[in-house]
Order: sequence, then C-alpha cells, then structure tokens
Amino acid sequence: MVSIPLLLMGCGGVGRQLLHHVISCRPLHSQQGVRLRVVGVCDSKSMVAIPDVLTSEFRDDFLLQLCKIKSNGSSLLDLDNIGECEVYSGEEIGRKVIDVAAALRDSSGLALVDCSASSETIGLLSQVVNLEGCVVLANKKPLTSSLENYDKLVSQPRRIRHESTVGAGLPVISTINRMLSSGDPIIRIIGSLSGTLGYVMSEVESGRPFSQVVSAAKTLGFTEPDPRDDLSGMDVARKALILARLLGHRLELDSIKVESLYPLEMGPGKMSLEDFLAKGLPSLDEDIQKRIKNASSNGNVLHYVCLIEESRCEVGLQEVAKDSALGRLKGSDNVLEIYSRCYSKQPLVIQGAGAGNDTTAAGVLADILDVQDLFRHSTSGA
Amino acid sequence: MVSIPLLLMGCGGVGRQLLHHVISCRPLHSQQGVRLRVVGVCDSKSMVAIPDVLTSEFRDDFLLQLCKIKSNGSSLLDLDNIGECEVYSGEEIGRKVIDVAAALRDSSGLALVDCSASSETIGLLSQVVNLEGCVVLANKKPLTSSLENYDKLVSQPRRIRHESTVGAGLPVISTINRMLSSGDPIIRIIGSLSGTLGYVMSEVESGRPFSQVVSAAKTLGFTEPDPRDDLSGMDVARKALILARLLGHRLELDSIKVESLYPLEMGPGKMSLEDFLAKGLPSLDEDIQKRIKNASSNGNVLHYVCLIEESRCEVGLQEVAKDSALGRLKGSDNVLEIYSRCYSKQPLVIQGAGAGNDTTAAGVLADILDVQDLFRHSTSGA
Repeated sequence: MVSIPLLLMGCGGVGRQLLHHVISCRPLHSQQGVRLRVVGVCDSKSMVAIPDVLTSEFRDDFLLQLCKIKSNGSSLLDLDNIGECEVYSGEEIGRKVIDVAAALRDSSGLALVDCSASSETIGLLSQVVNLEGCVVLANKKPLTSSLENYDKLVSQPRRIRHESTVGAGLPVISTINRMLSSGDPIIRIIGSLSGTLGYVMSEVESGRPFSQVVSAAKTLGFTEPDPRDDLSGMDVARKALILARLLGHRLELDSIKVESLYPLEMGPGKMSLEDFLAKGLPSLDEDIQKRIKNASSNGNVLHYVCLIEESRCEVGLQEVAKDSALGRLKGSDNVLEIYSRCYSKQPLVIQGAGAGNDTTAAGVLADILDVQDLFRHSTSGA
Repeated sequence: MVSIPLLLMGCGGVGRQLLHHVISCRPLHSQQGVRLRVVGVCDSKSMVAIPDVLTSEFRDDFLLQLCKIKSNGSSLLDLDNIGECEVYSGEEIGRKVIDVAAALRDSSGLALVDCSASSETIGLLSQVVNLEGCVVLANKKPLTSSLENYDKLVSQPRRIRHESTVGAGLPVISTINRMLSSGDPIIRIIGSLSGTLGYVMSEVESGRPFSQVVSAAKTLGFTEPDPRDDLSGMDVARKALILARLLGHRLELDSIKVESLYPLEMGPGKMSLEDFLAKGLPSLDEDIQKRIKNASSNGNVLHYVCLIEESRCEVGLQEVAKDSALGRLKGSDNVLEIYSRCYSKQPLVIQGAGAGNDTTAAGVLADILDVQDLFRHSTSGA
C-alpha cells in the first residue's frame, strides 16, 4: 500500500469537490494499493492540521463536515470537533506547511495541492518541491508569475502536475508532456480555452447580438459576476502562458498579445458594471457583427482563440476554417488542436468540457494518483 | 540522472523507429535527467545483448547499424561488430531476457519493450513484471490473450504501459487511466480505431463504390497486403477488447461481436485474393451503398466503429449522428468519444493520426519516460 499524505490549500468549489472525490474513491484507490491521507486543509485565513502527520489523518466525517461549513461560507474555526486538530492562522500557516513537508521528507514526502486562486502560494509550492514533496495545482497564478519564480517551481519536473490549470480535467498538459518527452516537437497550438467565450462566440455566430448573448450568459451564471473578467481575455492569456512555457517559450504574462473584447475606456475602473451592461456592451455589437460577416465571406468562423506558434503567443478573436475541429465548435466545450511532426497534416485534437468543479477536481485527483510512484519507496512503514 | 535499462523485442518498423527516436532524443532526455540504456535487442529469431547489463550499453552507432541491417531484411547475426556482444537464439532468448531482468532487479529494474507482433511474448512480459521490471507494449497480442494471462500481465498496473496498442501515439489509454483513477466512471466509448476502415468508409460515403475504394487503398499501400485482414475487423476487435478490459469488462476476444465486411465464404481459406478483388468485392458494393443511403435518410453517416457500453462490446458498421465528432470524421484519422460522469452531455473527444511507425514509436517512448519514477531509486550507482 502506498500512502500519500495530502495537504490541501483552498476550500472553494474545486477544493471541496476534491475532498468529496477522495472520500468516494477510497474503495477504488484501496484496490489500486493507494491511500490518500489528508493531513491538513487551509482556506485563505486558517489551517487545520492533524497533530501527527507521519501516521495519522483526518477522518472522512470530519472532512465532510469541513466541506459543509465551507460551502456555507463559514470559517474553518467553526468546525465542531476542532479540538482534535491543530489550528494555524496568518503567517503561521506557511511555516506549518513547510514543517509538515520537512517532517515527511524522510518518510514519504508530502503532496501539496493548490486549489486556491491565490498568487501567494508560489513560495510554499517551490519550497515543498525542494523538500522532495510533490505539488499539484489547479491554481494558475503560481505558473503565470515571473519566469524567475516559474523556473524555481518547475525545477524538478516530475514533482509538479497541473493538468487542471488548462481545460480543467481535459488531458491537455499530460498529452503535451507525453509528446515533448518522446521528442515530437510541437509546431503550433490553437484552441478555444474559455467555455464562456466559446459559448458567447458560437451564439453570436448564430445571429444573436453580442450584448444580448453576454447579458443572458451572465444571468445564467455562465460568466463571472462582472463579465468583463471573461471578456478581458486575461484568463485565457494565463492558460496560453502556461502552454507556451511548457513548450519552452521564455515569456512573461505582459508580453502576450491579448485582445480584450471591450475597449480600455469601458474597463472596471472607468465604467460601472451597470453602465457597461446597459450602454457599453450594446455599442460593441456592430463591430463584432461586421467581423463575423467578414470571416463568413472568407469561408471562416470567428472564435476567441489562444495561438502559440514559433515565437508568437496570442490571445484574441481569429478567423478559423469552418471545417476544422475548432471551426465546428459549438457551445461551451474547450477544444485544442496540436500540430507536431507526428501530427502535421491533421492535428491531434482534444475536445470536451473545460470547466466545472467536478471535472476540475477529477483532473487534480488524477494528477495526485499520477505522482504515486514518487511515494512508493515510503511504504515499508505503512 | 535516472538510468533506464531497455531491452527491445521486435525490429520491425516500429522497433527500429523507436531506436532512432531514443538516439535523437539523447540531448533532450539528458536535460530531463534520464538516460535510456539499450542493453539488448531481439528479432523473431535472435537476440543480441551487452555482456554487462548492469553498467554498460550498446553504442548508438551499433544501434544504427542494427536498424540498417534489419530494414534490409537481414538477420541480427549479420551485424559487423557482433563480437562485442552476446548472441542468443531460439529458447535461449527467453532465458536470457529473464536473466537480464533478474540481474537488474536489485539495482534499477529492466524496461522490456514489446514492439513485436508475436503472441508468444506474454510469458516473458509477466515474468519481467514479477521481477520488478516494467513492460511497455505496442504489441496488442499479449493484452488480447486469455483473461487468465491478462490478469497476470496487469497484476502490477503501475509497471505496464501500452498507449500505442490503441490509436498509436494518441493519448487514449493514458486518458482513460486518468479518468478511472479519479473515479470518473466511463459510461460509453465509441470510436473509429482503424485508419484504413475510416478512410474506406468516408470515401464510400462520398459516393465511390466500396470495391473501387478498397482496391485503390490496397494499391496505395493503405491496407494490409490482403485487405481482408483489415475488412475482417479483427484488428479493431483487439483494440476494443483492450479498452473494454481496461474498463473492467471480463471479456475474451471471441465473445466480442465483430462484423466482418465480407461474408465467410469469401474468407482467405475459401477464396483467393485475386478472386476476392475481382469478383468478391464488387458483389458487396450494392449492400453497402444501400446501408449508406439508409443512414443518410436518418440524418446519419455509416462508420465502422468500436462501441463499449455497459455489457456491450461490439465492432462493426453503425449509423452515427452527422454532427458528432465521429460523424464528421474524414480520411484516416482515428477518433474516440468518451462519455462519463464528467463528460455526460458532450463527450471527451480525442482525434488524430492513429497509425504510422513514427507516431506509434513516439507513443512507446512516451510510455518509457512515463515509468521513469519506478527507476529513480537506482541512481546512486549511475
């Protein structure tokens, strides 16, 4: 039996779903000879940890109660039987995480799982890798920080997994890593990596005005509370940067060419959300309609894509061939076309749901199982 | 540096391409801290091995000469500087493979790579797994033997990889394994897993008679020398069985429902290839044309698919929706649609070239790199 001590950062939808998956997969993982042992959980303010991280773990009923409390928006400190575990807050959290990783270094190592949306976890993640632990990320921020930080984080490539940072659980990162390790050079990646923008563009393509589609998508909960967070393209840019760096491009986030679907003067600092929805958005309809017509007259469709090719790394509206996998995309699916030596005429295509807590958490869990061989040598004591 | 001792069975197109990839990837793998050390190579009759498998390896120029000789159809015994290495033949080969695996057991373990098309390697593969080695297969036969043999072969799931047995280098097996390990139950798999039959059916769909398409495909080298080897569906059936067993179905090859595209009385034992091409094939045109029209009137297209759903595992012609990834398939690409809890409304789709020595060998090499963590603890002596 391989025992993987797991410390989770982030109790949002993905983190909680991950705990549910871990619990419901216990019989399956037991069959596979793996035991996931949750030894600590943090939210943005507090951390609870089991006192003896070497041999003990949280009980499943405690984890379920934790999920319940967090989904109600309460603090970890509101847990009933918190007396059983140690509680940390503020700067103590980071110190404790490192203590746990150091304590586990000589036995099994720690799996630190980042399901937060924080840009401040990167130091901890790098330190855990240095302490021979593994890190698994759904959080894009650490991978899209400065190159200097990035290099530290990926200094031991076998000890980091981050499938769910691009396309949720879709096998994007794992596939690219497979291609790279087999010496199949990737020439071009083009894809639609935002379910929201994919949905918006395919609805606009079918004739509805941009402003109506965005407003309706907001009402349906398909966009962020302020849809400009989607329309800015910055989330797609982070995904593009993660892919580009994986391919070896030495890029920073601000060196990516990003097309925002609204002009600067309608930005969150300059225009209220109400004004943007009521006046800003409708003023954009005509231009987008024109570009769609233009694409159509070229036999193409207009999609919001991420494109990585040679030294180019761009995010924005592009015309794509109608009969390509990308051109045929409808709805909120993500799609990625990868061209390489092996896939030169026709690309390797990966398509499917690229968002959702269930799928994202499943991707994180698959990553955790994927690093199990690095924990194997520690089984003698289990 | 991780050193992976590699023993290759099979010097056909895929095996030779693998050796070329291994050599051309040396700088890349060195950057990644991995050294692939080829310690032995077998064809169907002979085996050459380096005398000291613990520390030594074949030189790249020797491997290149070996590839050259095998591509000319010569024997391994024709190698120039064969004096440097040990030579085995017949039953000695199996004994030597086990000796090598046993010798390496306590240091690093052996990676035994099966790029042959033999049904007789299964015993060796299972024994190497038992000796704490890893096995990587492009060969479908060992995985489609009896369930009893299969169970032995996969008894240590982390020690076996076989991506290239289905869809060549396409990330089919690795993706299904990821989904399974994250507890995302797979409900339905449907796909086109024969480039040849995919090409034939999409050409027939576009109006050309079946017999003409098959004959032209044979001339172009798209089919086996006797195209009935493709048209029987048995190659697809083996792939279906591999996928079904991965999902936990307890099936034997002969329990899969397989539709052959020619009737029994036109089989290789009963009709010569010439007669089949001249008289047999044309007599099949009308029926297939009728079924295509029928599908079309239902808004569907006819494809030769593999379908796994609940207890069903079938291979044959099926109508599929025109606007699905499978329905839109043209040419020789493979495509797989996977439905699961996470991908329930829209499937996870993987599409791309599913054949070719380059792609198949790249899949094998990615598998070898994927088991590297099982070799890591052996680096102290390297």
